[in-house]
Amino acid sequence: MGRSEQKELREETEQRLLELLIEEKIEEFREEFLVLHSYDQAKFYAELDENQRLQLYRFLSPSEVAYIFETLEVPEEDYQQLLAEMHPSFAADMLSHMYADDAVDVLNELDKEQAASYLTIMDDEAAQEIKELLHYEEYTAGSIMTTEFISIQANQTVRSAMRILKREALEAETIYYVYVIDDEKKLVGVVSLRDLIVSDDETMISDIMYDRVVSASVAQDQEEVAQTMRDYNFLALPVVDFQNHLLGIITVDDVIDVIDEEASDDYSKLAAISDVDAVDKGPFNAARKRLPWLIILLFLGMLTASLIGRFEETLNKVAILAVFIPLIAGMAGNTGTQALAVAIRGLATGEVGNESKWKLIAREAGTGLITGGTCGILVTGVVYIWHGDVFLGLLVGASIFATLTVATLAGSLVPLIMHRLNIDPAVASGPFITTINDIISILIYFGLATLFMSYLQ
Amino acid sequence: MGRSEQKELREETEQRLLELLIEEKIEEFREEFLVLHSYDQAKFYAELDENQRLQLYRFLSPSEVAYIFETLEVPEEDYQQLLAEMHPSFAADMLSHMYADDAVDVLNELDKEQAASYLTIMDDEAAQEIKELLHYEEYTAGSIMTTEFISIQANQTVRSAMRILKREALEAETIYYVYVIDDEKKLVGVVSLRDLIVSDDETMISDIMYDRVVSASVAQDQEEVAQTMRDYNFLALPVVDFQNHLLGIITVDDVIDVIDEEASDDYSKLAAISDVDAVDKGPFNAARKRLPWLIILLFLGMLTASLIGRFEETLNKVAILAVFIPLIAGMAGNTGTQALAVAIRGLATGEVGNESKWKLIAREAGTGLITGGTCGILVTGVVYIWHGDVFLGLLVGASIFATLTVATLAGSLVPLIMHRLNIDPAVASGPFITTINDIISILIYFGLATLFMSYLQ
Repeated sequence: MGRSEQKELREETEQRLLELLIEEKIEEFREEFLVLHSYDQAKFYAELDENQRLQLYRFLSPSEVAYIFETLEVPEEDYQQLLAEMHPSFAADMLSHMYADDAVDVLNELDKEQAASYLTIMDDEAAQEIKELLHYEEYTAGSIMTTEFISIQANQTVRSAMRILKREALEAETIYYVYVIDDEKKLVGVVSLRDLIVSDDETMISDIMYDRVVSASVAQDQEEVAQTMRDYNFLALPVVDFQNHLLGIITVDDVIDVIDEEASDDYSKLAAISDVDAVDKGPFNAARKRLPWLIILLFLGMLTASLIGRFEETLNKVAILAVFIPLIAGMAGNTGTQALAVAIRGLATGEVGNESKWKLIAREAGTGLITGGTCGILVTGVVYIWHGDVFLGLLVGASIFATLTVATLAGSLVPLIMHRLNIDPAVASGPFITTINDIISILIYFGLATLFMSYLQ
Repeated sequence: MGRSEQKELREETEQRLLELLIEEKIEEFREEFLVLHSYDQAKFYAELDENQRLQLYRFLSPSEVAYIFETLEVPEEDYQQLLAEMHPSFAADMLSHMYADDAVDVLNELDKEQAASYLTIMDDEAAQEIKELLHYEEYTAGSIMTTEFISIQANQTVRSAMRILKREALEAETIYYVYVIDDEKKLVGVVSLRDLIVSDDETMISDIMYDRVVSASVAQDQEEVAQTMRDYNFLALPVVDFQNHLLGIITVDDVIDVIDEEASDDYSKLAAISDVDAVDKGPFNAARKRLPWLIILLFLGMLTASLIGRFEETLNKVAILAVFIPLIAGMAGNTGTQALAVAIRGLATGEVGNESKWKLIAREAGTGLITGGTCGILVTGVVYIWHGDVFLGLLVGASIFATLTVATLAGSLVPLIMHRLNIDPAVASGPFITTINDIISILIYFGLATLFMSYLQ
């Protein structure tokens, strides 16, 4: 079955399921729907209208709907509506059947009262697990971990570990790592299912467990956790408190989402949008997300304009100067954006630390001198040939040289300073650094022009 | 053990290992080194100098070095040197012990002759596997898959499947999914280890296998594969040819690398750098990567300059016009970059397809009108208050309105057109779209100014 056939089959299935749903053929619907992967179920669900969804809730059990919600990806603001449609006890029941970390993600989108009321009517054990997770701050290891892991003791045999594993296999989010804890619930080792499978039944866990466990602390930044799991190729990572008590685990699927989110977050910020808005939202929604940035940049642009205004006298005498303003400002913006992107990625991946900060600055200064020198010489030549004025050529060339050097340096300094001040350096977007560099370039250009005015007339 | 203690311990270990290596204490070194995770081994290895590495090759077997190389991340150009240092038969032996997909990654960095000579002296089975993988084009599913998977037949029992699994557990890259094939080696189902564990020994595989297997075709783009695995939360995905023969599997760790690479690739392009250069490379290296872009942008900037030159007469009469050039051009660039980022992410995630293309364009046109209108009114007011000239205010305001509308539209049209022409839309970087929009904005601004000249003097 090729790719396109797979797609066709999926579309046919969706069409048939919709008909069965509308015609209220519950038996046939369940038979066909429940064999689908949760991702396909969630895709089907996301396309239903309210009446169809209400019908679906009558066809499925709370735990079956929970399975859909674990994979569902809809805009955050829609969850409130989706849960309000359900009977409250149905919704609470559904939440208690979800993996605790996924349930927390849903509850975080609701207003506090609504969330609290679900927790009240939910069964106690599930509510307890969820409440514990709700405490953790967003973007920390605690906020993406789940408490449904399998733990054993070091003095067990492989046989007894496998028995526990079989019993808990359907509840646990992953069974591919089993964590070894001591009497105080402190993490002392890890065994992979692969190790269990290839070992004899009578082997002691203490003999095959790996005791140099890499773990995350519960308050650690989720991006750091993702980096660790990527480096070590782990399918799951244990999360511990400061006394090394095992609190939960983070699974690789959550980490992929983190990597994806952080990357598109950095990307959006480079382009000065709050977040990449969903394509299916209307223009008002898009404008609302972009206008704050644009208005800030507008006022920074006004500052640039007023700066040029100071040089009106110079401009009145040599109007040709105006011709090169966008060229010089533009080049400053371009080189600044390049340096910015390198610095932000370096900070995000941890490649740029405290020691290598000065190295980066020195490197960028060097790069600025080289690119500035090359572009400066090029421009001098072109302007001279074009206007036949060697002084004009030298002025524009020298401005490009000075501007590119300073702008490259600024592009790396600004994010480093922000990082130092504990501001997310990615907030220094491309347009922001471009505007800063506009100002720098205009000062250099008109400064030089005013200084050497006598040669230009 | 907290995070900082973990780090301290790691540094201590590295220091001790280095001493043992230099003092040629082979027994103690092996004892301590071989218990480390391959990522930590690779980190240690990457910091050695040539003499120390040569020493290491005498301490470790080829298969032990293979384990390091599976995780090693050094700049691509370094592999040639690292392999050349080893005895050729040691290197070939090491390559044959690596997972085939990782060995292919290393061989792809060598020149063809060097790679071919290793394949000749390597053992036949490994060479055969690697040669097959070497055929696949970069960035396809084939290029990142491995052939070390476990397959069984549908008419086996769980007991016999578990026996195969135990036998192959140490060779296979993942044992957490087992693929079911028919007599012609066509893929017919998949069973997770979780399902095997919870089933009775005598159960038939055909009864518990999932037969709606999601697979990737061998020539499919790796980014699409990553998206599928992310959507379905798979730990591995089977790769088939057009007749559905099972060729290999892609594991989640490779997919994380793909997601990471593609994200930083898009990011770099938005900032107009060929790729985010490693921070530890010198300024010449950085300048070499950035200059091509800067020079292209320089000539586009010249075009803008010559365009303004056409309006020199207008400028001579009303020098104040020059003051607002960077403001208007800058705003056009900002709004264009925003629209560009949304379009590129939409295309990359597949959210923007053929049907939704027109919707995006209409949406961006609407967004441009709203942001342009808002900023235009703001600017008119500010310029009027500042210069006390209502016509100047209206001119700048109207230019901002028209420019933002057109620039927003251009920001989404350019990547869509490139996508249509089968050019990677991410090549349309922020600086590129900014320069295009510079030109558009200057035409609008000076066009309007020339038209309404009589009101301005």
